[in-house]
Amino acid sequence: MEKTKVGIIGLGTVGTGVAQLLLDHGDRTARHAGRVLWLEKAVVRDLKKHRDCDLPQGILTDNVDEVINDPEIQVVAQLIGGIEPARTIMLRLLKAGKDVVTANKALLAEHGAEIFDAARELGRSVAFEASVAGGIPIIANIGQCLSANQVSSLHGILNGTSNFILSRMQEGDDYAAAVAEAQRLGYAEADPTMDVDGTDAAQKLSILAHLAFGARAHWKDIPCTGIDTLDVTDVEYAGEMGYKIKLLAVAELVDGGLELHVSPTLLKAGSPMAEVSGPFNAVRVDADAVGRLMFYGPGAGQMPTASAVVADMIDTAVGRTKLTFQTLELWSNRPARVSAADYANARGRFYLRVDVEDHPGVLAQITKALGDQEISISSVLQHEATTPGDDIPLVVMTHATTEGAAAKACEAIASLKCVSGAPVRMWVRD
Amino acid sequence: MEKTKVGIIGLGTVGTGVAQLLLDHGDRTARHAGRVLWLEKAVVRDLKKHRDCDLPQGILTDNVDEVINDPEIQVVAQLIGGIEPARTIMLRLLKAGKDVVTANKALLAEHGAEIFDAARELGRSVAFEASVAGGIPIIANIGQCLSANQVSSLHGILNGTSNFILSRMQEGDDYAAAVAEAQRLGYAEADPTMDVDGTDAAQKLSILAHLAFGARAHWKDIPCTGIDTLDVTDVEYAGEMGYKIKLLAVAELVDGGLELHVSPTLLKAGSPMAEVSGPFNAVRVDADAVGRLMFYGPGAGQMPTASAVVADMIDTAVGRTKLTFQTLELWSNRPARVSAADYANARGRFYLRVDVEDHPGVLAQITKALGDQEISISSVLQHEATTPGDDIPLVVMTHATTEGAAAKACEAIASLKCVSGAPVRMWVRD
Repeated sequence: MEKTKVGIIGLGTVGTGVAQLLLDHGDRTARHAGRVLWLEKAVVRDLKKHRDCDLPQGILTDNVDEVINDPEIQVVAQLIGGIEPARTIMLRLLKAGKDVVTANKALLAEHGAEIFDAARELGRSVAFEASVAGGIPIIANIGQCLSANQVSSLHGILNGTSNFILSRMQEGDDYAAAVAEAQRLGYAEADPTMDVDGTDAAQKLSILAHLAFGARAHWKDIPCTGIDTLDVTDVEYAGEMGYKIKLLAVAELVDGGLELHVSPTLLKAGSPMAEVSGPFNAVRVDADAVGRLMFYGPGAGQMPTASAVVADMIDTAVGRTKLTFQTLELWSNRPARVSAADYANARGRFYLRVDVEDHPGVLAQITKALGDQEISISSVLQHEATTPGDDIPLVVMTHATTEGAAAKACEAIASLKCVSGAPVRMWVRD
Repeated sequence: MEKTKVGIIGLGTVGTGVAQLLLDHGDRTARHAGRVLWLEKAVVRDLKKHRDCDLPQGILTDNVDEVINDPEIQVVAQLIGGIEPARTIMLRLLKAGKDVVTANKALLAEHGAEIFDAARELGRSVAFEASVAGGIPIIANIGQCLSANQVSSLHGILNGTSNFILSRMQEGDDYAAAVAEAQRLGYAEADPTMDVDGTDAAQKLSILAHLAFGARAHWKDIPCTGIDTLDVTDVEYAGEMGYKIKLLAVAELVDGGLELHVSPTLLKAGSPMAEVSGPFNAVRVDADAVGRLMFYGPGAGQMPTASAVVADMIDTAVGRTKLTFQTLELWSNRPARVSAADYANARGRFYLRVDVEDHPGVLAQITKALGDQEISISSVLQHEATTPGDDIPLVVMTHATTEGAAAKACEAIASLKCVSGAPVRMWVRD
């Protein structure tokens, strides 16, 4: 049977999983690839570090040149996180004639144009299934299976850490306790900033928007709010009104422009996306021919991510990736097919919570501030104060309006004498 | 730009949808294929029949030889249903050097070995995404995206007609009314037998089992019960106990054997599969590396099915299908990797409804019949008789047992003097 020599750069959690699949299940990969994927080299930083994976003699090296300069290694899984040295190694691999597989969404979100351009110019391919939604094959589904469609919207729960934390808050934990539990169970890193502030979801959304809409939005230009300022109070009020809060990444074609944002969003309880709980991810796709599809699965973790990486390695070894890569609109000399819509014009309903003084006329002032922006109210929730004289939370659900109008109304509300602090504001979707 | 000439055989509902996508969205298919898919010929039975689709002059023909004998047509969507003449045309197309795309699951379930063997021997490919689960790209996901995994189980809601009828029964319709409503809305054909008796689901399951497990089960050998004998009473009792009834197609590896069956099954309300309602399909896949994935979407309909057919035509024109087809285990000279498990040994919980006489000692007789098969009872539901002296339904949920033991117990129960008719028995899954 034919043999394709492959390499791995970075034996962290995912890299170790990839090595395990290649070494322990060679029969399986050979069956699906019609050839043996032969693990020739695995590059690590520290040769002495203990690893949970038995590697045959001679595979480990701390010298990346042993992969780059080995002309027999055709496919390389580049599994180092962060920007550098990942970027430089990636470009060197492509220049050395390797096809590359990666799980590094930060690198693609930041330097995708450079990397895809280089691959295309050099006649190579980059496969990146594992960079978005872990084990869910969303890249293949959008890039290939839905090729007869114009996608009209993507809604994604793309960050498993945030979703786990939100699920815990749903059960009553406050934010800090939920983060601590996520860290204890390995769902959050010691520093979870990029997960909880929405950065990770925005980076993944920029990749999906690139693929599904031919958009060229840099992730830093995507309006993004994380869950790191979310108060468990709002999770409770949302629940009381029949909603669950999810960190939702949205890409939606509206009047020819592409609306993009990442925000904590109230979703109607019982709807499929609202019920995605724990560290899972889900992507809902609406497209003109097929209608609505939903994909659900593990968004991270060693073996789910390794599953995506090895599938990409097989596709690359077989030659499928190259055919797909050539027809995707990933390089910078293809003009963007859509431009970003003005976020201020994005339409939808909002949840507002305002802490107000408990005296007559307050509700009138709030509703006036909303009315001034032509925002009408769908429902109001206000419990009696437990201690007379304390500020009390007033929760308002609006009818559809624009982001811009809602922002202005909130500014006006914040400046009212009867209000303390800035209003809490979140999107609401059914 | 390069041009690939394509043909369509059969301009029924799906064929018309495919023609529309090719003609109205040529830019889109060209972008994804890197070449133009040029609709050269569409073969129909009756040239005079009115069609909802404007076809350019010269495309329509009632002579299939105009496609078969045109050496320039490379890819053909063969969209005639049923076995003949579909089978003969399929084989002639392959012999004439065409790559074929089909949505005909009945043909593949019945003559798949012959067709796949012929394609392989002739160096051609057969793409069949649209044959299972309509618009959900389940063939690509299992055949390609999960190639690093050993699938351990597949649970599918694979028949949209049955699922629509079950959803109506959930809302109180009896079976006949639900079928009539499905027909009125176009979700059921005038003769819905193959949909409601489980045949359609069993055919799709045999294709998925072939793909995911390398199984060689003929659909007629798959134990299969439809929803056509389902009583709305059982839908109500199931609801009362917190379950919904779905027509579930199951393929599960157990002790090295493959358990296969299609049966109305009680699923815990609130679980993702239980909440798939209306004409939708869903497939849940458990696999060793990735864990659990779920795919949800429209299981039938003109444009969802056309979406899958055109994606296959693009993949075939690009050359991806050929690469995938070569590594799938679809031909008869590849030995089966797994054999069917004995259905009598299949384990699980059961729902039983027995109509019994309303007098002392009856429950004792039923429980004894169960006890004789070492079946223990998880819960019992019996309402008071509305008219004294009438038979009353006794509903029993068992703990895990085997299909064989449950069947024997039901036989014994049916022969009891205090019981009228045969017990109703269904699988229960959490």
